[in-house]
Amino acid sequence: MFQEYDVIVVGAGHAGCEAAAAAATMGSKVLLITMNMHTIAQMSCNPAMGGVAKGQIVREIDALGGQSGIVSDKTMIQFRMLNLSKGPAMWSPRCQSDRAMFATEWRNILENNPNVDFWQDTAKELLVEDGQVKGVKTSLGIEIKSKSVVLTNGTFLNGLIHIGEKNFGGGRTGEKAATGLTEQLVQLGFQAGRMKTGTPPRVDGRSLDYSKMEEQPGDEKPAKFSYTDTKPLAKQRSCWITYTNQEVHDVLKTGFEKSPMFSGRIKGLGPRYCPSVEDKINRFADKDRHQIFVEPEGWDTVEVYVNGFSTSLPEDVQYAALRKIPGFENAKMFRPGYAIEYDYFPPTQLKSTLETHLIKNLFFAGQINGTTGYEEAACQGLMAGINAHRNVNDLSPFVLKRSEAYIGVLIDDLINKGTEEPYRMFTSRAEYRTLLRQDNADIRLTAKGYEIGLASEDRLDAVKKKQNEVEHIISIFATTKVSPEEINGALEQMETALLREKTTLSQLLKRPQISVQKLAEHSSIVAGLIAAFEEESVQQAEINLKYDSYIEKEMLLVDKMNRLENLNIIDNFNYDIVTSLSYEGREKLKRTRPSTIGQASRISGVSPSDISVLMLYIGR
Amino acid sequence: MFQEYDVIVVGAGHAGCEAAAAAATMGSKVLLITMNMHTIAQMSCNPAMGGVAKGQIVREIDALGGQSGIVSDKTMIQFRMLNLSKGPAMWSPRCQSDRAMFATEWRNILENNPNVDFWQDTAKELLVEDGQVKGVKTSLGIEIKSKSVVLTNGTFLNGLIHIGEKNFGGGRTGEKAATGLTEQLVQLGFQAGRMKTGTPPRVDGRSLDYSKMEEQPGDEKPAKFSYTDTKPLAKQRSCWITYTNQEVHDVLKTGFEKSPMFSGRIKGLGPRYCPSVEDKINRFADKDRHQIFVEPEGWDTVEVYVNGFSTSLPEDVQYAALRKIPGFENAKMFRPGYAIEYDYFPPTQLKSTLETHLIKNLFFAGQINGTTGYEEAACQGLMAGINAHRNVNDLSPFVLKRSEAYIGVLIDDLINKGTEEPYRMFTSRAEYRTLLRQDNADIRLTAKGYEIGLASEDRLDAVKKKQNEVEHIISIFATTKVSPEEINGALEQMETALLREKTTLSQLLKRPQISVQKLAEHSSIVAGLIAAFEEESVQQAEINLKYDSYIEKEMLLVDKMNRLENLNIIDNFNYDIVTSLSYEGREKLKRTRPSTIGQASRISGVSPSDISVLMLYIGR
Repeated sequence: MFQEYDVIVVGAGHAGCEAAAAAATMGSKVLLITMNMHTIAQMSCNPAMGGVAKGQIVREIDALGGQSGIVSDKTMIQFRMLNLSKGPAMWSPRCQSDRAMFATEWRNILENNPNVDFWQDTAKELLVEDGQVKGVKTSLGIEIKSKSVVLTNGTFLNGLIHIGEKNFGGGRTGEKAATGLTEQLVQLGFQAGRMKTGTPPRVDGRSLDYSKMEEQPGDEKPAKFSYTDTKPLAKQRSCWITYTNQEVHDVLKTGFEKSPMFSGRIKGLGPRYCPSVEDKINRFADKDRHQIFVEPEGWDTVEVYVNGFSTSLPEDVQYAALRKIPGFENAKMFRPGYAIEYDYFPPTQLKSTLETHLIKNLFFAGQINGTTGYEEAACQGLMAGINAHRNVNDLSPFVLKRSEAYIGVLIDDLINKGTEEPYRMFTSRAEYRTLLRQDNADIRLTAKGYEIGLASEDRLDAVKKKQNEVEHIISIFATTKVSPEEINGALEQMETALLREKTTLSQLLKRPQISVQKLAEHSSIVAGLIAAFEEESVQQAEINLKYDSYIEKEMLLVDKMNRLENLNIIDNFNYDIVTSLSYEGREKLKRTRPSTIGQASRISGVSPSDISVLMLYIGR
Repeated sequence: MFQEYDVIVVGAGHAGCEAAAAAATMGSKVLLITMNMHTIAQMSCNPAMGGVAKGQIVREIDALGGQSGIVSDKTMIQFRMLNLSKGPAMWSPRCQSDRAMFATEWRNILENNPNVDFWQDTAKELLVEDGQVKGVKTSLGIEIKSKSVVLTNGTFLNGLIHIGEKNFGGGRTGEKAATGLTEQLVQLGFQAGRMKTGTPPRVDGRSLDYSKMEEQPGDEKPAKFSYTDTKPLAKQRSCWITYTNQEVHDVLKTGFEKSPMFSGRIKGLGPRYCPSVEDKINRFADKDRHQIFVEPEGWDTVEVYVNGFSTSLPEDVQYAALRKIPGFENAKMFRPGYAIEYDYFPPTQLKSTLETHLIKNLFFAGQINGTTGYEEAACQGLMAGINAHRNVNDLSPFVLKRSEAYIGVLIDDLINKGTEEPYRMFTSRAEYRTLLRQDNADIRLTAKGYEIGLASEDRLDAVKKKQNEVEHIISIFATTKVSPEEINGALEQMETALLREKTTLSQLLKRPQISVQKLAEHSSIVAGLIAAFEEESVQQAEINLKYDSYIEKEMLLVDKMNRLENLNIIDNFNYDIVTSLSYEGREKLKRTRPSTIGQASRISGVSPSDISVLMLYIGR
């Protein structure tokens, strides 16, 4: 019934969709297996993409030629650039999405890819021969052959939903769980674990009193995610902010003894940085209120997402507590929040390509690796899809360094450090975050995406044009000197010290009070100089000029680190012969099998002295 | 957590949506309980509304103030008026729908009704006290109070999906079954049965060769369903026609021994007039081909519905057979066809309001009553919703007569004759089909819909205006005489006998060769007479004039029948004291408890002599 595929992708969430689109765009014949053709690309939790560090990932996905940025742009209802008051390394794009449109747009993209086939069914079992994956067997009993398989099972593997003292099987509320795969993988030698995540209740927007909340509109001049020609929003929908209070907390506490988390019924660990509201009350007992973001679920729907109120307390407690929140006095629920436990596989069992060590051509991406978040899932799917395609075609692994992308940081963290709780990206996880900005993801990554056949030539040309412009602008600013007479008027307006002698514009830009935009407002000379260039290029040049010392410092660190990264460790290196390794170090090295000294140095449990020993040994 | 509702509707398919919308529009506080907020108003089978007799039902729903016509109009991708070559009683509107848009539009309508609340959960149990329904208990264990309950469970009650020798629980493919309710209803004294229906495989439109098929475009001048100001389509998508052949049949036959139907694994009876392809081959062994309609699933999607190829044979047999169909040589499936068995309750247990005899204020609508078809379900939902509202407000039952609407025929058939196999509407089921036309549903029903508070005043005004115009046009045609000089030129063009003396236009219109449209084309007098009127009114007047003898004949029959319909039988009439009733007649009358002699006369097993006996008795 089926041809032999190059890549079978199991699951059609954020990870699965990116994996399928990437491998197919690069030329692989892909089969996407989903339990339900009508639930492709569901946003299972909040209707939003991006955010701090996550927005950077979406832009990286986009720069490489992935689709999440384009889908987000086409379906967003609000856009905000977070952290604009901080340095550009912290600027983070975030949008609210129309949940239904997001799913439809993804399905359209996949349907329009001639290399993507679809099959509605559940993968029950992998076909494995001689340590190599050969396809999947479905719950209909069909064996479908393929050269590689990407598993993106999300929360579906033995998914168990908890609400108060009740629990029932399910991959999402209203949807079946998937069984069989975990059991087989464990038999094959994989280590499996259990994680937990949760989601808040959904409420009826018609029952809320917004006059008691604070409006949070989108940016006045909204930007977007994709570097392609998607359009920024002309109109937007607002979110609303309200707060819990002592009364809310008191009501919630009445449900604590029935809480599946506090009673120990939930075994899996939940996402520390996306805690349930009961967790927040419990852990931060001194805080008398917590922020609640009231997020519309789309352009037209009245359904509303209560961000900050994730909970698995009994539904009547959820309800009673909700109604104590200002603006929620008459709130009606559409469905209660819940927690879900699911199987994951500690990601130290993966190579940096997201291929498993144990089974050749088998890749894992998304929550199955212990991560949380749409963006984290999507970028893993992208990388797994790319590498599945490359494996099948005997091409070298495509790996991003920690200094090249948040995606590199994420995967490097996962495979070396593993994770005991759902892993979420933060800017603090990146050593080189001044380099890994949302504004320069295209400059960092599009050429790489083009080289592997994912990003189009148009994209590459656009980046080249931008880079040329940036360099041009930098050289203009570095060489154009302005005299006190020419510029002091503008400087006075900006409340910064006046010049006494001619100074280059790049020198002036170092001052925190000065920005190109302000200069251009007050000085016709500067306005004239930048008039011919794209706004984006001007901004990029400005960031480079303003932060060049930080950037240089990080580049030096990268160089230093790269020397370690370039010291390769052969695939089947025998750690047992390096007698002076610490016991723990040796065990961790044997488990993780790093491919470079750099990677080895980041494995938790591997000490600096272990690294010195290794370097000595490999130096020989 | 919940207020006491006037009406709880269980299930959000065609029946549930109409029930909720109707009761809420009339003023009831309604709670719609659905297993999944994302699957409201799914078209579980083909992406189409209307068709022969079914299109009439959609127009009746619309005329009464229901929503199916409006939703269909807003989401259709093709419109055709079927049977235009036959008399106007047979004209039947039908559209292809965009499956996803249809669901979205319905959800929008419900969300915009301030009296509709939503709850995502599964109804497990009814709350019943003293023979009266008091609410439902859900699978989350929540008890929700209400004054009435409408059950519209579709194929979900103990749903069992069959594909070849495999079977598994499910309400639709990829969705869970619902359990608990049947068992409770049986305990309460209801008789339950098992039915079966099926659906064809979905295929990838990109893999089809349309050059080998026959195009079936929409009407050149597409009409629409709703009498409101929805817009007819400006562009349309075509369907395609192809045929099975001997080779297809031979391949299908290889799967017969694994067929769940032929092997007896499926106990429920399937829809006779919507048979599976294996059924067609089996029953019509002499036919060497069967027609296949290839229907697009929406404006943009590549998914295609293979109408005429419903099957529950093993998926590899489905696939191999599909590929023998011209144009399907390289077809790829998205998912196989399947059969589904589900519980239903013989509808003889219902009153003409769709309330159950056994439990007060409990209503059943849709497939739970043993019907098949979206339109059949929708109109039952509408009537159940109306009557639930009226029960709760101590208003008289709202029942349509067989002479007033197909909806009346359907419900009267169900409650009096019951059904052993999925009941589908046909024009042949209606005794008065010259009266029950798609063109006059508004004239027949909108005043009724307005009276009960469902159809808006705007709708009523529009109908009144139309009726006035129609009468005006009829009187003009009845009184305007044309002379041979004036009209013979036109008659010659129409190839019909010339006039020798002055004749009224209404007289001329009796000739089959003559239509108002043709007259207007060839005669400026006629063109002038109708210029000021709406096209629809002219058509209505024409039908009335052309078919007045048929219409009158049926009206006489209706009058005669109505005399029986007006002979009421009191609710708790004691049939045991009417000693001369036949044994079977008495049993059937006791089971069905007809409310009029007319209804009694249509109960299978009640003989004409039983009726005479009854009339005598009641006449006293």
